[in-house]
Amino acid sequence: MSSASADFTKYLTTMAGRVDKALHRFLPAEKIAPQTIHKAMRYSVFAGGKRLRPILCIAAAEACGGDAERAMPAACAVEVLHTYSLVHDDLPCMDDDDLRRGRPTCHKVFGDGMAVLCGDALLTEAFYILAETQATPRYRSDVFIKELALTSGSRHLIGGQVMDLEGEGKSLNKAQLVLIHKAKTAALLTTSLRLGAMAVNATPAKLAALTTFGQALGLAFQIIDDILDVTQSTEVLGKTAGKDANVDKATYPAIVGLEKSRKEAAALTKKAMDALTVFGKKAGHLHQLADFLLARNY
Amino acid sequence: MSSASADFTKYLTTMAGRVDKALHRFLPAEKIAPQTIHKAMRYSVFAGGKRLRPILCIAAAEACGGDAERAMPAACAVEVLHTYSLVHDDLPCMDDDDLRRGRPTCHKVFGDGMAVLCGDALLTEAFYILAETQATPRYRSDVFIKELALTSGSRHLIGGQVMDLEGEGKSLNKAQLVLIHKAKTAALLTTSLRLGAMAVNATPAKLAALTTFGQALGLAFQIIDDILDVTQSTEVLGKTAGKDANVDKATYPAIVGLEKSRKEAAALTKKAMDALTVFGKKAGHLHQLADFLLARNY
Repeated sequence: MSSASADFTKYLTTMAGRVDKALHRFLPAEKIAPQTIHKAMRYSVFAGGKRLRPILCIAAAEACGGDAERAMPAACAVEVLHTYSLVHDDLPCMDDDDLRRGRPTCHKVFGDGMAVLCGDALLTEAFYILAETQATPRYRSDVFIKELALTSGSRHLIGGQVMDLEGEGKSLNKAQLVLIHKAKTAALLTTSLRLGAMAVNATPAKLAALTTFGQALGLAFQIIDDILDVTQSTEVLGKTAGKDANVDKATYPAIVGLEKSRKEAAALTKKAMDALTVFGKKAGHLHQLADFLLARNY
Repeated sequence: MSSASADFTKYLTTMAGRVDKALHRFLPAEKIAPQTIHKAMRYSVFAGGKRLRPILCIAAAEACGGDAERAMPAACAVEVLHTYSLVHDDLPCMDDDDLRRGRPTCHKVFGDGMAVLCGDALLTEAFYILAETQATPRYRSDVFIKELALTSGSRHLIGGQVMDLEGEGKSLNKAQLVLIHKAKTAALLTTSLRLGAMAVNATPAKLAALTTFGQALGLAFQIIDDILDVTQSTEVLGKTAGKDANVDKATYPAIVGLEKSRKEAAALTKKAMDALTVFGKKAGHLHQLADFLLARNY
């Protein structure tokens, strides 16, 4: 391992640790009544996730020359929101998944009703946590709330899951699949970056650059997820492999082929990298995160 | 019908109409993609509800001497949030109800997965709409968001549903049932009032009086709901009557008896009324709302 990659691995570990610590502080304690829901929330949030979205949020704040700590509420909010979307997506009436991050999914442990409530509670908590963000001269509190609500609402994150549900068993074209991937993945990655930047009062120009970066990176990320689903084992993924193909769900490799999928992911990552020029050396961690996402095999 | 009660009936109708108009403006149009989710959201919100929570929100703003229009985003937010909680509560994995406000429930029309997503989208939208509230000298934007998130989160609204789910088939005592009713009903009614008052910059003393009013009224309201469930027909209620008893769910009449339930509801309403003294004549509509809730039989 090179010294640069050792440093980056250390950065990821350190940041994930700081995010976990903040999440422990923000989430209701297990002993608070009713305990079952607080256990379910913590079971789902502390399931060994990579904390990719919060780290993007913090790295964006750094790229804008700001204090990472100011981005921490937003970082935790996007992770809690992401977790809610996984808990609900895994439900039997949705994607019906038993395994997530190598462990039984929330509804397998706590039951379907409790998993619905756990997701609801995490979604609600995400807004509470986000409201802890200090307003800046350029961005008032309501701007943060609207950014997250719009991205995670019926037009984007939830809209993507709707298209996903409605697309099962149907033959989707590439444009339709890109639309789903943008809504389900790229939108929240982009918002993670934007919220981090807004928390440190980023200029509109820097916010625009992060938006381009996030949209390209997000699509690349999801294409790679599709590739891994068809090429890796359940053991390596920590979730059911080949799931998408099994339920006849459209994937990028199925539509454009594996090789072309890999090339498109690489081209998108290049596009993402180019958008970082405006930040100069301060975008070092964002560059490394993009590299990391393209090269990952788990 | 007396002239006062005719005036009040007109007030309710006028206000419900204004709230509906604002809801139409705030909610995404049905033609926005993906259309299914936006149809499901509007199907659930425009189902002939009484708009009790938004009207309480607006009446609280009036009682504090403020402009009702300033409370409109908060009024719509609490109604949208209330609707999400009904959509999820009606799911087969929760209370499993087929009928709501005289119409098939969301999951009966759109399917279970879509109903989960519809509830998620309404919950998310509630925070977007609430963020439209203008901050006041006393209350910043983040205070409104935290008020709603806390009330609707795992400690209160969702927590109440958790206790409800866990209590089914078990013998609850009166204290436990009161805890559920406070969490599931009184908390959101109280927050509806508080948000309306905060939107017009109410003094802390007035906010405290509304809190007392809301908590007493909310418990009275839920006791009456329990009474109606055992005394009225499905046709009159517009939802399945006797449902609670059928699934062996604890109700107020079952624990303390019908007559005592009625007396407690009346005593709580009296307590609520007393809390309104500080507002003088400006609390006229809040008084009438409390009267209306105690006397209702549908």
